[in-house]
Amino acid sequence: MSTDMLVADLLAEIERIPLIDSHSHIDPLAPTSRSLDDILSYHYYTELAHSSGMSHAPLAADVPPRQRVRAILEHLERFDNTAQASWLREIVRVFLDEQVERIDPADADWLFDASERIFGKPDWEEEVLRRSGIERVFLTNEFDDPLERYNTRRYVPCLRTDTIVFGWQNPSVQQRLAQTTGVEVGDAGTLRVALAKVFERFVAHGAKACAISLPPDFVPRADATAGSPPAVFWMVAQMCREHRLPFDLMIGVNRNVYRGGVHQGRDLFDQRTSLIQYAELFNAFPEVMFPVSVLTSVQNQELVSYAWIFPNVLTHGHWWYSNIPVYIADDLRARLQAVPKIKQLGYYSDMYKLEFGLPKFAMYRRILARVLADDLVRPKLLSETQALELARLLLRDNVQRIFGV
Amino acid sequence: MSTDMLVADLLAEIERIPLIDSHSHIDPLAPTSRSLDDILSYHYYTELAHSSGMSHAPLAADVPPRQRVRAILEHLERFDNTAQASWLREIVRVFLDEQVERIDPADADWLFDASERIFGKPDWEEEVLRRSGIERVFLTNEFDDPLERYNTRRYVPCLRTDTIVFGWQNPSVQQRLAQTTGVEVGDAGTLRVALAKVFERFVAHGAKACAISLPPDFVPRADATAGSPPAVFWMVAQMCREHRLPFDLMIGVNRNVYRGGVHQGRDLFDQRTSLIQYAELFNAFPEVMFPVSVLTSVQNQELVSYAWIFPNVLTHGHWWYSNIPVYIADDLRARLQAVPKIKQLGYYSDMYKLEFGLPKFAMYRRILARVLADDLVRPKLLSETQALELARLLLRDNVQRIFGV
Amino acid sequence: MSTDMLVADLLAEIERIPLIDSHSHIDPLAPTSRSLDDILSYHYYTELAHSSGMSHAPLAADVPPRQRVRAILEHLERFDNTAQASWLREIVRVFLDEQVERIDPADADWLFDASERIFGKPDWEEEVLRRSGIERVFLTNEFDDPLERYNTRRYVPCLRTDTIVFGWQNPSVQQRLAQTTGVEVGDAGTLRVALAKVFERFVAHGAKACAISLPPDFVPRADATAGSPPAVFWMVAQMCREHRLPFDLMIGVNRNVYRGGVHQGRDLFDQRTSLIQYAELFNAFPEVMFPVSVLTSVQNQELVSYAWIFPNVLTHGHWWYSNIPVYIADDLRARLQAVPKIKQLGYYSDMYKLEFGLPKFAMYRRILARVLADDLVRPKLLSETQALELARLLLRDNVQRIFGV
Repeated sequence: MSTDMLVADLLAEIERIPLIDSHSHIDPLAPTSRSLDDILSYHYYTELAHSSGMSHAPLAADVPPRQRVRAILEHLERFDNTAQASWLREIVRVFLDEQVERIDPADADWLFDASERIFGKPDWEEEVLRRSGIERVFLTNEFDDPLERYNTRRYVPCLRTDTIVFGWQNPSVQQRLAQTTGVEVGDAGTLRVALAKVFERFVAHGAKACAISLPPDFVPRADATAGSPPAVFWMVAQMCREHRLPFDLMIGVNRNVYRGGVHQGRDLFDQRTSLIQYAELFNAFPEVMFPVSVLTSVQNQELVSYAWIFPNVLTHGHWWYSNIPVYIADDLRARLQAVPKIKQLGYYSDMYKLEFGLPKFAMYRRILARVLADDLVRPKLLSETQALELARLLLRDNVQRIFGV
Repeated sequence: MSTDMLVADLLAEIERIPLIDSHSHIDPLAPTSRSLDDILSYHYYTELAHSSGMSHAPLAADVPPRQRVRAILEHLERFDNTAQASWLREIVRVFLDEQVERIDPADADWLFDASERIFGKPDWEEEVLRRSGIERVFLTNEFDDPLERYNTRRYVPCLRTDTIVFGWQNPSVQQRLAQTTGVEVGDAGTLRVALAKVFERFVAHGAKACAISLPPDFVPRADATAGSPPAVFWMVAQMCREHRLPFDLMIGVNRNVYRGGVHQGRDLFDQRTSLIQYAELFNAFPEVMFPVSVLTSVQNQELVSYAWIFPNVLTHGHWWYSNIPVYIADDLRARLQAVPKIKQLGYYSDMYKLEFGLPKFAMYRRILARVLADDLVRPKLLSETQALELARLLLRDNVQRIFGV
Repeated sequence: MSTDMLVADLLAEIERIPLIDSHSHIDPLAPTSRSLDDILSYHYYTELAHSSGMSHAPLAADVPPRQRVRAILEHLERFDNTAQASWLREIVRVFLDEQVERIDPADADWLFDASERIFGKPDWEEEVLRRSGIERVFLTNEFDDPLERYNTRRYVPCLRTDTIVFGWQNPSVQQRLAQTTGVEVGDAGTLRVALAKVFERFVAHGAKACAISLPPDFVPRADATAGSPPAVFWMVAQMCREHRLPFDLMIGVNRNVYRGGVHQGRDLFDQRTSLIQYAELFNAFPEVMFPVSVLTSVQNQELVSYAWIFPNVLTHGHWWYSNIPVYIADDLRARLQAVPKIKQLGYYSDMYKLEFGLPKFAMYRRILARVLADDLVRPKLLSETQALELARLLLRDNVQRIFGV
């Protein structure tokens, strides 16, 4: 890309936009990695190593971190073509040693040592955020997560509701609900009371969004049997309306498809899903903003059209299996050509450790710069200045405005 | 694109091909816009403005046109990234003032005045057609539309059958059928008699096609209950066979999905549809040509394969939500690589006012020139001359031959 | 492409990799064409000619080959834009006369004569393989095919099981089963005995794979009614496990959709299919490798994700309606960015006559060189050497390792 001056110019400016990361799995009390083990234990690496032939043995809790790092790195060459492997190389080069061209299993020990030393620096969290250009990070909180003890302006709470919608009838969940709300939940009525208390607590602690991931065949319904997932989901949407929280929908994932998979490496999807399943929801809650994440490019084509028509439907990031350059580029191009620019939330990291923000946003920004240059600036649809204003909306301003941060 | 001489050369030649627009919603008695209000009232702008936050208020019938133009232009900046906004800029620059780089709400009044003055010129219709390079335009006619009083060689009648197939049991439709055919329709038998008269009248007035738009779950069937939509559809196909009319299928739209949407801005789709639903139809009517329009790229992938196998299935334009550059390019490339060139109907405008023909066909021609250059001429699959012959088939000759105009 | 030195360099090196063709329909006793008639009788040409208006008449068995060649060439100009037409031109130029730019119907006679003379040379089979760079070719064998009388190291037997899974209850199939295994098949139990003998015979004769093509709605099940296709399929998977044979799944084809089509030109697909239908299979047989072929890019997006998660799911070639440059490029790019490189089986010819290996693999290699350059080498994700190692995995080493040839 170095020879394309327009792309390089756009990228340089885009890199100066302070980021707000609208979805992550960061633990605010342990936001950074302790060592390369935390990096390589990210499910992208464990699942690709397992898919390439690695057994579960190195992943057991009692395996020493250094040994696990060796085991995963021994399989890395088998998937060094992947986008995920390129994130790892970027992390190693940026944070550990800029000379590393190729990560060799023989380097496991000194890389591990270097990572412990560098990640252990007292200001590491600040340094990672600063070097990544990330200002704020949305969390993924269980309904009974503690929300005190950390800076909720930096780490913005977000109420994840999968457990309540799909599992509230589970006794252990009811026990946790009782503990955090004081309400003994036994039916839809008491569930509503408890849920209201959950929302109140979250909003009081600065929560800026509610979120849920949904299977491909899910259809929200106002008239579903009380207590069933579609009905509880509807109840959650009502709470979002009441508390003016956007409701992030992550649509299309089936859980535990590969039962022998590694932790967090068992889920897959069924492309036969449609946003038409959500039409009644979008109609019924015009006051609620729905940032929508999808898993395939044909769902993205639907999303582009739904966001073009429904005022309350927004495009949100490039999720999971769609978060590789070829799909990001295709999906982004369609969004830029057909969705009002104020309705696009460009990208989120989905990360578990802060170190991943840098390579993931870098990947997105490179694609964004290239698409802006080729699709909008070169055909004279937007000036370079307008293209950069657009980039700023996607990476920062829209998140700020939609979520009210 | 200015630096790519091959693309520029191809484009210059392609622009000389006189166009036949095989699908539009032109009113032949009021084909052009009276002012910028008619331009901005096109549903693409009202729905994008509404989706970006504009209320319904400015769209009420009693709002003065000048005021509506101001309201919509005040929202334009929110979706100035879209392909639709680029059509507007091209219309303004080509027809109103070539100096306009960016349409500012502050320009609403003088643009409105200029549009009234220019669009009001006595030869405006001729001028628009001439500058757009459009020779003939297919219409979309209700079964009881008057077909006299205009030049049906320029404005080719096309019988749209949605109302009959899905609504013939509606008393008001039966009344209209009685009025136009003299037949009191009460069952499938009398419907057939009335329909035959409708077809006879259309053919006598120069109609060259029959057309219908269909929901994603529609399945035509010879053995459906008499009078049901699949059975009436089958009856229409029989009439097409009898009268040697191609039957345009526009597959996949659900009506009124967003109930609070603006006029014509309420429809969306469900990607879970397949041309396999039409296999029996294509088998049963080998004498009928079926130009097929679809809404997603995965349906386009099916369409490419069905047009490659079935002699009576043709690819037809780039419809609605697929009519943005990224999807046009992808869908076109696949068609050019796998569908016999004599079976591709390249593009239609779908326009309501003639001024839109220019920017829409211009968008298509630019993409076509680029794809011909990159996919066919540069890899030496076709010579430049052959590529231009191909372009002529797509933009003119195939429409002429298939529809017999 | 001639001006892109990186692509040219990569391509030159890729062309030196000796190919193993993991799926074809070659008859090992008549592997090459006798004349241009065998080339043009490939269903890609007969179906495109028929789709473009050619009747069935020239395809009748009693039509002289020379006359059939004339008839098909008379229709060629109608589909000379297609990828399939480009394969034909490459065959003619490489094997018959390098001066031919465009194949004119007037050339039919001398081309036919030249083809008879050249294809009739005593060492033609060797020459074709040598010039195509193909070392080994997998076959598609019916369960009772003779496996003697040819070099099974060059022509690797592969047990195709469609007939058994979907047709074993057909008396003629039971008769053939009895003939080849000595087992009178009447129920699931006796079928298992016969099937075991079939597998034993195939493995003894060097078979390296089992294969099947499946309709879009197929769902393999352990608990299906005994003798039903899902249950017999499950039985075949058990045999694959026992005999350590990979099981090629070719997912998504509906047979005989266009009933009036030419031989082998009647099948089409329904895009509404998902690999989730195979999740139980992939879970139940972790020891069996499943090279999977799909028909659409959205299925490819699923396949990329399933191959990334399931250790026993592999991407396999670019099948049938997806085997055109635009879909190959899109599908390949996604695989290269997200599937471990050791799990990708790059390309197979699907050919009936050896002459097609050259243009088909050439098409794939050109796309591969371009994608490697643009997506991996230029963004510095892989070095040029690593990219070539990757190409070798895709074109040779992975086939060798997975199938054990």
